Amino acid sequence: MINVNETHDPNLKSWIESANTSDTNFPIQNLPFCVFTRACTYENVRVGVAIGDFVLDIYSCYECCLFDDESFTIAVSADNYCLDHSVMKKNKDLQRAFRRRLVEILSETADEETRKNVQRNLIPMSEVQFYMPAHIGDYTDFYCSIFHATNVGSMFRPDNPLLPNYKYVPIGYHGRASSVVISGTEIVRPKGQNRSDDGKPPEYVPCKNLDYEMEVGFFVGKCNELGETVSIEDAEEHIFGLCLVNDWSARDVQAWEYQPLGPFLAKSFATSISPFVVTMEALAPFRVPAFERETGDPQPLDYLSSEQNEKNGGFDINLEVYLQTQKMRDENAEPFLLSRSNMKDLYWTVGQMLTHHASNGCNLQTGDLIATGTVSGEGKDERGCLLELTWRGKEPIQLPNGEERRFLEDGDEVIMKGFCEREGFRRIGFGECRGAILPSDS
Amino acid sequence: MINVNETHDPNLKSWIESANTSDTNFPIQNLPFCVFTRACTYENVRVGVAIGDFVLDIYSCYECCLFDDESFTIAVSADNYCLDHSVMKKNKDLQRAFRRRLVEILSETADEETRKNVQRNLIPMSEVQFYMPAHIGDYTDFYCSIFHATNVGSMFRPDNPLLPNYKYVPIGYHGRASSVVISGTEIVRPKGQNRSDDGKPPEYVPCKNLDYEMEVGFFVGKCNELGETVSIEDAEEHIFGLCLVNDWSARDVQAWEYQPLGPFLAKSFATSISPFVVTMEALAPFRVPAFERETGDPQPLDYLSSEQNEKNGGFDINLEVYLQTQKMRDENAEPFLLSRSNMKDLYWTVGQMLTHHASNGCNLQTGDLIATGTVSGEGKDERGCLLELTWRGKEPIQLPNGEERRFLEDGDEVIMKGFCEREGFRRIGFGECRGAILPSDS
Repeated sequence: MINVNETHDPNLKSWIESANTSDTNFPIQNLPFCVFTRACTYENVRVGVAIGDFVLDIYSCYECCLFDDESFTIAVSADNYCLDHSVMKKNKDLQRAFRRRLVEILSETADEETRKNVQRNLIPMSEVQFYMPAHIGDYTDFYCSIFHATNVGSMFRPDNPLLPNYKYVPIGYHGRASSVVISGTEIVRPKGQNRSDDGKPPEYVPCKNLDYEMEVGFFVGKCNELGETVSIEDAEEHIFGLCLVNDWSARDVQAWEYQPLGPFLAKSFATSISPFVVTMEALAPFRVPAFERETGDPQPLDYLSSEQNEKNGGFDINLEVYLQTQKMRDENAEPFLLSRSNMKDLYWTVGQMLTHHASNGCNLQTGDLIATGTVSGEGKDERGCLLELTWRGKEPIQLPNGEERRFLEDGDEVIMKGFCEREGFRRIGFGECRGAILPSDS
Repeated sequence: MINVNETHDPNLKSWIESANTSDTNFPIQNLPFCVFTRACTYENVRVGVAIGDFVLDIYSCYECCLFDDESFTIAVSADNYCLDHSVMKKNKDLQRAFRRRLVEILSETADEETRKNVQRNLIPMSEVQFYMPAHIGDYTDFYCSIFHATNVGSMFRPDNPLLPNYKYVPIGYHGRASSVVISGTEIVRPKGQNRSDDGKPPEYVPCKNLDYEMEVGFFVGKCNELGETVSIEDAEEHIFGLCLVNDWSARDVQAWEYQPLGPFLAKSFATSISPFVVTMEALAPFRVPAFERETGDPQPLDYLSSEQNEKNGGFDINLEVYLQTQKMRDENAEPFLLSRSNMKDLYWTVGQMLTHHASNGCNLQTGDLIATGTVSGEGKDERGCLLELTWRGKEPIQLPNGEERRFLEDGDEVIMKGFCEREGFRRIGFGECRGAILPSDS
């Protein structure tokens, strides 16, 4: 299933110079999809592909006859305003063929006429506004980091941090689809019920413990019908690509509301995603074995188990979270690195998440977003949210300019980054997922 | 806000005779919306209104110039294939004016030409196939029956049946929108992880404790933007109408998976809804005071509290659940009444649910479905699911033909009904929400 081929060759170069620098997120080996408009125009949103410092307008390329094959026509022509209406819903063979064609027209072996044709459909990324890459029918959030689950569990249940189901069930819950927003959208501090004093009634006040969660999301490509399951062997055929996710969380609201039905308003005020969907094909060189279970841990049940998943189900994706406060911006100080973690540390794979999700016959639809839950590692500096980093606020973070943080304050901006690096391969970047906190309207 | 007017006059009669019988669900005082096609045709789905034994095709009426007012044109003309693209998203003034116009053309005072015009757009309900009334962007399920919460709580936490947040927070969770299906859709018994023996690993097997939940749902009409809240005074302006909901539940899966993030696969395999959306306007005569709190119970926090809500926030809607097993069908036996409950017994009102849902700035969109959670009353025969009725299976139900049930078996059909009755007013019916269980494909 995982096929590292000529499209991953590190010697492959683009005639677009900015795609060949060593630090670009978007070499010709990446080619992530996005949805965009040219800023300050009234053009409709359209599907694009990132290459170096540019976005390639896919529909215009199609109009210029650059995808002159009937199968590509089907992929890009109709209703081409979001990915779930175009290439995302197609089968993997077509998606792979389309990737090869994109490489052809962007590589330095492309002829002059092709280059000219492509050139007129390249828009500098600085002139582009990004939109949601797909219509997200349903958004699901998992809880796949055993380090995160253990940390959070030990704060709330010191005797019994990890519940007995954790190593059998990829724990997840339904999130709110309507409030998933694109990177850059400002986040209004939510209000909610806060009960800080057990002796008094709760109050409806602006959230006091506002947090982020560093996650990775994946978009469902091929759908399954209601009542149908998806085998672990087929799971990745249903996954189109990955993005970064910030699952904003109101911790005080969450602590008070979450029993017995789980998080609700603590999460549904906003979830931010990065604009680029990095395809499963681009990530092929960065696949790693599934998380190594400890001696004595149960093996996954049969329906969640395959040799391929064991061998290659993981992803080696570096994740970084930065914070820039209002004061830091005023002082022109660089964003401060809060944590580094890696997707390979997740207990469950994307294939297991998808197969489990559909294991009751639930229909997953093209464009659905499924996120991993907070990606935390074992180390203290690998914790993917402030709840863990400051241990519920007990150990505030000291910022270089003298400020400290237990949770997020108004004006704070959280910046998430993701990238893959491996000897012998080009760097594959996810870009950024950003969001700044606005005060509550109280 | 609640206005019982001439459209509720019990003496108002329709020239369509079947709308005037005492037992019809759909007198001229009701006029619920639906989405349908004529069975066995290739026509597109379209919006309709139920009247007696017929469905009135709204778009065809518009084409026949029966809604010759510009405001109605806006309500019914564009993209008229589901309610959220037409009258549902309009403001209440227009919805009320549209109701008055429908009453005009259907009442016995309508002139001959109008009747003729209407007549050609009436389709016998027996020739109609119903579809989802709206595109449900997000589906949310609450937990509003204190009797249900107390019963279920006392099974799992005998010492502490009702959690401390219950009387402050309208508890809810995000459900799965993609698997909400229309009444009549057959439900495949889901598979899932079952751990019946603590000493052994769980098994992935067909659900052993399959259940229904008798609920009422409401559709969001007017939307609110992300970051905006909706005051309790305005809440009902955002509600279009109500329907019946069966929140199918896999109890064995639920017990094993639900901690700490709430129900997930135990619910997401299917949720059935009745095809008719009974408008808030039709239900005006059946509004009752909000649930009477016991002495010592906390008052709702300010943001969930208003005089109007206190006085008229409830609904007097009778709910009935029937079961018909395969054997009963084979023997031509009538469906067996399992329970009767009433929506007026809910601890929280629809206004409180909506205001709470948006209280963190979560954007509720036209077509979103919000359900009450199981509607149980105080009495043993008022319990809205088998979990409660059979007390986790310990007290099986004896059926008249000698069968017994702890949970649902393959071939069982669950039939839910809802209706309002009040001296001096016509009966307003919700129709039925039906679903039969198919065996797992195991």
